[in-house]
Amino acid sequence: MNYVETIIYPIEQLTEFVVRVFKYMDIPKNDALLASEVLATSDLRGIDSHGVARLHSYYGLLKQGRINPKPNLKLLRESASTATVDGDNGLGLVVGPKSNLIALNKADESGTGWVSVSNTNHYGIAGYYPLKALEHDMIGWSMTNSSSLVTPLWGAERMLGTNPLAIAFPGHEEPPIVIDMATCVVAMGKVEIAMRKKRPIPQGWAIDREGNVALQPSEMLNEGALLPLGSDRDRGGHKGYCLAVMVDVLSCVLSGANWGPFAIPFVVNQEMPRRSVGKGIGHFFGAMRIDAFINPLDFKKQIDDYIRVFRATKPAPGTQGPLIPGDPEREQEQIRRKEGIPLVLPVVEDLRDIAEKTGIPFDQ
Amino acid sequence: MNYVETIIYPIEQLTEFVVRVFKYMDIPKNDALLASEVLATSDLRGIDSHGVARLHSYYGLLKQGRINPKPNLKLLRESASTATVDGDNGLGLVVGPKSNLIALNKADESGTGWVSVSNTNHYGIAGYYPLKALEHDMIGWSMTNSSSLVTPLWGAERMLGTNPLAIAFPGHEEPPIVIDMATCVVAMGKVEIAMRKKRPIPQGWAIDREGNVALQPSEMLNEGALLPLGSDRDRGGHKGYCLAVMVDVLSCVLSGANWGPFAIPFVVNQEMPRRSVGKGIGHFFGAMRIDAFINPLDFKKQIDDYIRVFRATKPAPGTQGPLIPGDPEREQEQIRRKEGIPLVLPVVEDLRDIAEKTGIPFDQ
Repeated sequence: MNYVETIIYPIEQLTEFVVRVFKYMDIPKNDALLASEVLATSDLRGIDSHGVARLHSYYGLLKQGRINPKPNLKLLRESASTATVDGDNGLGLVVGPKSNLIALNKADESGTGWVSVSNTNHYGIAGYYPLKALEHDMIGWSMTNSSSLVTPLWGAERMLGTNPLAIAFPGHEEPPIVIDMATCVVAMGKVEIAMRKKRPIPQGWAIDREGNVALQPSEMLNEGALLPLGSDRDRGGHKGYCLAVMVDVLSCVLSGANWGPFAIPFVVNQEMPRRSVGKGIGHFFGAMRIDAFINPLDFKKQIDDYIRVFRATKPAPGTQGPLIPGDPEREQEQIRRKEGIPLVLPVVEDLRDIAEKTGIPFDQ
Repeated sequence: MNYVETIIYPIEQLTEFVVRVFKYMDIPKNDALLASEVLATSDLRGIDSHGVARLHSYYGLLKQGRINPKPNLKLLRESASTATVDGDNGLGLVVGPKSNLIALNKADESGTGWVSVSNTNHYGIAGYYPLKALEHDMIGWSMTNSSSLVTPLWGAERMLGTNPLAIAFPGHEEPPIVIDMATCVVAMGKVEIAMRKKRPIPQGWAIDREGNVALQPSEMLNEGALLPLGSDRDRGGHKGYCLAVMVDVLSCVLSGANWGPFAIPFVVNQEMPRRSVGKGIGHFFGAMRIDAFINPLDFKKQIDDYIRVFRATKPAPGTQGPLIPGDPEREQEQIRRKEGIPLVLPVVEDLRDIAEKTGIPFDQ
């Protein structure tokens, strides 16, 4: 990261601003607090694209009346271990945590809980939700679809979102294993960074609008598409495509949300999809009580052993050896809790723009 | 495929031989039928590496007493939606289907069912199990660990199995979406084929024993390792590593089986792992009743729409456009049911060897 171009803010200052902005937009106080917690988790864990950097989009969509500030969540169907939720077009940052809580409660009763959610919006980082499950001594899952940016293998257009999958497993003395990954090769943000730095992008990241390999970021950004994890047929690009479909079906087809190319875009100025096949976008949450399978202490001690064994893997030349999933985010969180959150200038300007329009002080 | 080097057998002939061999090895008749069904599904669907091609290994392990022909499955723990099974060191081809059935029964009662299995052995193709769930109008999941062949990103040794993940979703007029994928870039079998053909392998498939890029198949085969899906850091190799860990923890740590580098090898002449951290290898099965989430007919009609929309994706240059997950296997099954199963000569010789040793006629 280039610190010359960033300004550092304590997380408390950002969170207070977020809560005040959401309340100003008619979001009830407790919902605003919940939403701010999801954004703060992202900023603390170093996933800059999903924290306060998105506040301007949430603000714009709320202002246009495209997100309902006071959603009334409806349980459309349920069984002992499942539920289907209609998010009433609320903020994903509010519908997500509330639906995840339903999964945790179902698991309390029945061993596991699985909740598919329609009529919702962007829910922040996928990893937030399994982290909540860990607080209840459970294994947590989360998935969501998102605006289409990714081509299926052998396609030449945007048909799928970056459709992330997250899952977390608790350790005993060691920290948890926390997996939080998009099912495409790289995030759009990395292509945008290459664009700003006027650098080419590696083969395997993206295609241009005709479906040819994109080596310049502009080729992808100008109606090109990101490639699914695996990139091409030789390297298993069909597998990344399969994973994106799995996330899409569990989050959207199972809940009645808009899947594939029909996902509602998250930003204000993007074209709406050519038809609607459901309501809003979709999420999928899972919670598994560890003691429904095995003694939880035995499980956690095995996770400790697992982590130590994998840390001791013989390193590839020129590396320090494998990381444990969640390591980079945990390290960022330790640093950022102490030193604050570095925001790039365009994000600072976005927040100042909100401050000006709402009269809520930011950093003046 | 090079048909010069293959002999074609009707599936019925292969299945009859398999059943007779398993019965000869003291496996009860119904279990032998179950096991033969799993192998036949693999041969029919064109996954040649997991069908009768493996019979010689099952035979060898049974003969050495390393697999229990008459396992007594034990339910170690259960809740309304979960169970943990000890497979009593039985054939995975028998323990797998029986444990999967427990998941289906749990789902019948509680909406979903999730079963983690220890003390088991190689269970055939991962895709067999979700195909059974489809027969019950359910979404099925299956995962398993396997002998270590794959390095974590930034590692230089075999630490994980090819750890496949399978899931299937039923359509109404369209066939189901069937995902069945290893979490590494390619199967070991593809490296072995390159070796036989004296051809190099693409960058991104494997490393040599020092952790450097392997471009010759011998470099991987001689104590090198396969790479996780995504191959390297730039192309998301950490994500394939994460998926392999997810499969490993759900299948093994949750059940009390041997995870990571401690997975019991499937073949007779391979070295045993340096320590044991559990019992046998592990599987994980899931079943979700569709009507626990949404009207099943609505779901299936959406899947039809999904399939048609994705088939209509603009094709990448030089391709026919994206496939639907399960297409290649379905096409193979249609051909092979009519025309028979082509077996390469080394597999035919293995089967003839079993025939000679047991006195069960194969193709004489």
